[in-house]
Amino acid sequence: MKTEHIDYFKSIVGKENVYDDKAHMLAYSYDATRNHYEPDAVVFPRNEEDVSRVLKYCNDNRIVITPRGAGSGFTGGALPANGGIILGLEKHMNQILEIDMENLVAVVQPGVINMDLQRAVEKRGLFYPPDPASQDYSTLGGNVSENAGGMRAAKYGITKDFVMALRAVLPNGEIIRAGKRTIKDVAGYNIAGILIASEGTLAVITEITLKLLAKPKRSKSAMGIFPSVQKAMEAVFKTMASGVTPVAMEFLDNLSIRAVEQKFHKGLPVDAGAILITDVDGNLEEELDGQLEIIERSFKENGCSEFKIAKDQEESAALWFARRNASQSITIYGSKKLNEDITVPRSKLPALLEAIDKISKKYNVKVPCFGHTGDGNVHTNVMVDGSDEAQLRIGHEAIVEIFKATVERGGTLSGEHGIGLSKAPYMNLAFSDAEMELFRSVKKAFDPNNILNPNKMGL
Amino acid sequence: MKTEHIDYFKSIVGKENVYDDKAHMLAYSYDATRNHYEPDAVVFPRNEEDVSRVLKYCNDNRIVITPRGAGSGFTGGALPANGGIILGLEKHMNQILEIDMENLVAVVQPGVINMDLQRAVEKRGLFYPPDPASQDYSTLGGNVSENAGGMRAAKYGITKDFVMALRAVLPNGEIIRAGKRTIKDVAGYNIAGILIASEGTLAVITEITLKLLAKPKRSKSAMGIFPSVQKAMEAVFKTMASGVTPVAMEFLDNLSIRAVEQKFHKGLPVDAGAILITDVDGNLEEELDGQLEIIERSFKENGCSEFKIAKDQEESAALWFARRNASQSITIYGSKKLNEDITVPRSKLPALLEAIDKISKKYNVKVPCFGHTGDGNVHTNVMVDGSDEAQLRIGHEAIVEIFKATVERGGTLSGEHGIGLSKAPYMNLAFSDAEMELFRSVKKAFDPNNILNPNKMGL
Repeated sequence: MKTEHIDYFKSIVGKENVYDDKAHMLAYSYDATRNHYEPDAVVFPRNEEDVSRVLKYCNDNRIVITPRGAGSGFTGGALPANGGIILGLEKHMNQILEIDMENLVAVVQPGVINMDLQRAVEKRGLFYPPDPASQDYSTLGGNVSENAGGMRAAKYGITKDFVMALRAVLPNGEIIRAGKRTIKDVAGYNIAGILIASEGTLAVITEITLKLLAKPKRSKSAMGIFPSVQKAMEAVFKTMASGVTPVAMEFLDNLSIRAVEQKFHKGLPVDAGAILITDVDGNLEEELDGQLEIIERSFKENGCSEFKIAKDQEESAALWFARRNASQSITIYGSKKLNEDITVPRSKLPALLEAIDKISKKYNVKVPCFGHTGDGNVHTNVMVDGSDEAQLRIGHEAIVEIFKATVERGGTLSGEHGIGLSKAPYMNLAFSDAEMELFRSVKKAFDPNNILNPNKMGL
Repeated sequence: MKTEHIDYFKSIVGKENVYDDKAHMLAYSYDATRNHYEPDAVVFPRNEEDVSRVLKYCNDNRIVITPRGAGSGFTGGALPANGGIILGLEKHMNQILEIDMENLVAVVQPGVINMDLQRAVEKRGLFYPPDPASQDYSTLGGNVSENAGGMRAAKYGITKDFVMALRAVLPNGEIIRAGKRTIKDVAGYNIAGILIASEGTLAVITEITLKLLAKPKRSKSAMGIFPSVQKAMEAVFKTMASGVTPVAMEFLDNLSIRAVEQKFHKGLPVDAGAILITDVDGNLEEELDGQLEIIERSFKENGCSEFKIAKDQEESAALWFARRNASQSITIYGSKKLNEDITVPRSKLPALLEAIDKISKKYNVKVPCFGHTGDGNVHTNVMVDGSDEAQLRIGHEAIVEIFKATVERGGTLSGEHGIGLSKAPYMNLAFSDAEMELFRSVKKAFDPNNILNPNKMGL
């Protein structure tokens, strides 16, 4: 990158907020995909005005920008695949600006870590439900840009259900506001709606207004053991259809159970086809018990051989242990995990899991599955030897078939992780030419010079 | 309109589905604004394929299209202000295609009437919460296009919170799908999100997939009498902030109470400053009672002199009578009602109502207010003599001041009704030039030839 550009960025944000040395370029070349692309510089805006000035300059000089929060994304959204600058929003723009107790609203900067907001509002008796697995380190700006989900989505929904308003900077440097601190707002196009999940390709989000809830006073956990994945999946959708809405309804298949047991020796049911772990919440004991009764009945009607309700926090943590440690444990099956987060309508889960089982056998790869079945979201993990080119190729072929099986059943390529770079090659499985063309038109409406996170999402 | 165009439309949809006679043009020139503009023809597509062919032809021949459902909008969204054709979606495309009991989802065509869906799903123990006042005649296509709200928004949210997926036809005739029958879907831009509330300016919606809930087993109603509007508004936001979430929290001011009483003689408290009417729901009696206890306490702490819980359906209907008949009753104050649906963060309601009172005195006009205060949405009605030009002018001046007072307090020009033609002149009070420019870019991305409902929303 030309020295004059670097100098200009320094003149805006201060020289301590611009990196262009090799070590930092390397440090900012990664995300959770483990792919890497080095940027030409990293710029840390101190405020919205800095963001605006940096974007305007980059737009005028056709310098590519990749916005970045914690860099914890699974699909490369924060990777500077086309060089240019990383706009680092986590260093300065990381303040909780307001917790409005009168309207149950929080206003945050994009660099605030999800869990920091959860803790801050829970101290005040409030509740911010979206809880992606990355909650301890991912930023809310990233959560909004990827429309992060999590375990509690089955009852409470995902990030988009909590975003009331945004402030953002367009690629030309113009500052815009979208949405209001109100439940209802129908004036003008729903710009906030399209910025959510736009993966940093349309604008740089500088402020987020989030809806909060009153924290439910009680919660309880339970676990059911099932003879097969199919039976467990039947139980999932039949339970949800019966009218009860658990906070979470998570599952582990046999491979995942065995992996956790092998690593941690917790006495898990290693011969079970699958386990389901569920949480219910509410303000009244009777409410929780009523929900658990319905869940137990529905589980048992669908082959559950053992149903266990946790008596206290400690037992609840024990029930959840397997689920929380599944992701790290399955690495026993291969050094490289090709993990996807496909999602189907819940009633299609039994057929989807059956299809995945067939694909796994056809390609002779292990595909441990676990995830958020309460909302139809399954983390499928094709495990291969990362050093073996042939295995990697086979793994990717298996994934294409898994995507096809998902789309055929009315599902989506991604329930949580986004498209970024990793899933870009598969967009044509899910979208028609007309739909892709529309995406490109929308991109152009916001970013005519294509300077903001270009070539992501298959655009 | 040229005969060749009419003939072409007839060749697509059949001649019985094209009107161009004077009587029909008049019949399709109105909506609930009571303004009128005659179209050149009315075309009734029988299916999505018809919509696609009509749009493609109109796009190629630069014929303007105004999509229309029931024509019950309050802001002129369905008025053919620039001539061209009305695309009537209520005649054929009015089927409930599916009620999916396994995934709690309904799939409908745009011409289905809101209440028809509510009834159909309630028969099956399910629940579609959005209940605009027009629910008996407005269509779901219109509800989605305006992002309709209603009384139950305080707890359940508005139309956008229930739209999972859409099918739509772009102005060039291309058919697109947006969203999935899943809670989570983050692949591609959130096109469904921006079609909602786009007032028929971006695409013609041909199919809507809606989330359903299990119907709560019980509900109860209560009413509180307050000495002043300010006290009532304090009670509203303090109650909502206390952690209870009533389904509805509606209010009437003194003018509205008096109007209903004068018309119906129900023994309403005509000296009250305001009344609040609230509903709670849930599955357990204790849950409802717990909520009502908190509401009663909060009401009484904020000046409520009398709190009454309905013992049964009949008493509940009596409590709701005043609210349901407010709109028609206030016409005693003037033949022309300039009604707006401004919305502010709930905590700003006391100050907003105070400002409206001052504006009413300054212009010497009566401004009865009622509405959905549980979500900050107030229906303000500037009452004037419709035959008196001077009064109409004064009324409009008062409205500009009301809009300004709303926007200053973080509110929106419209919580429910949209912008259409009626509020277009006020868009500059709420949006910056950069924001308006962005709206125009988005419009162009979908509709480069500006054939779809042009010149609405101030674009």
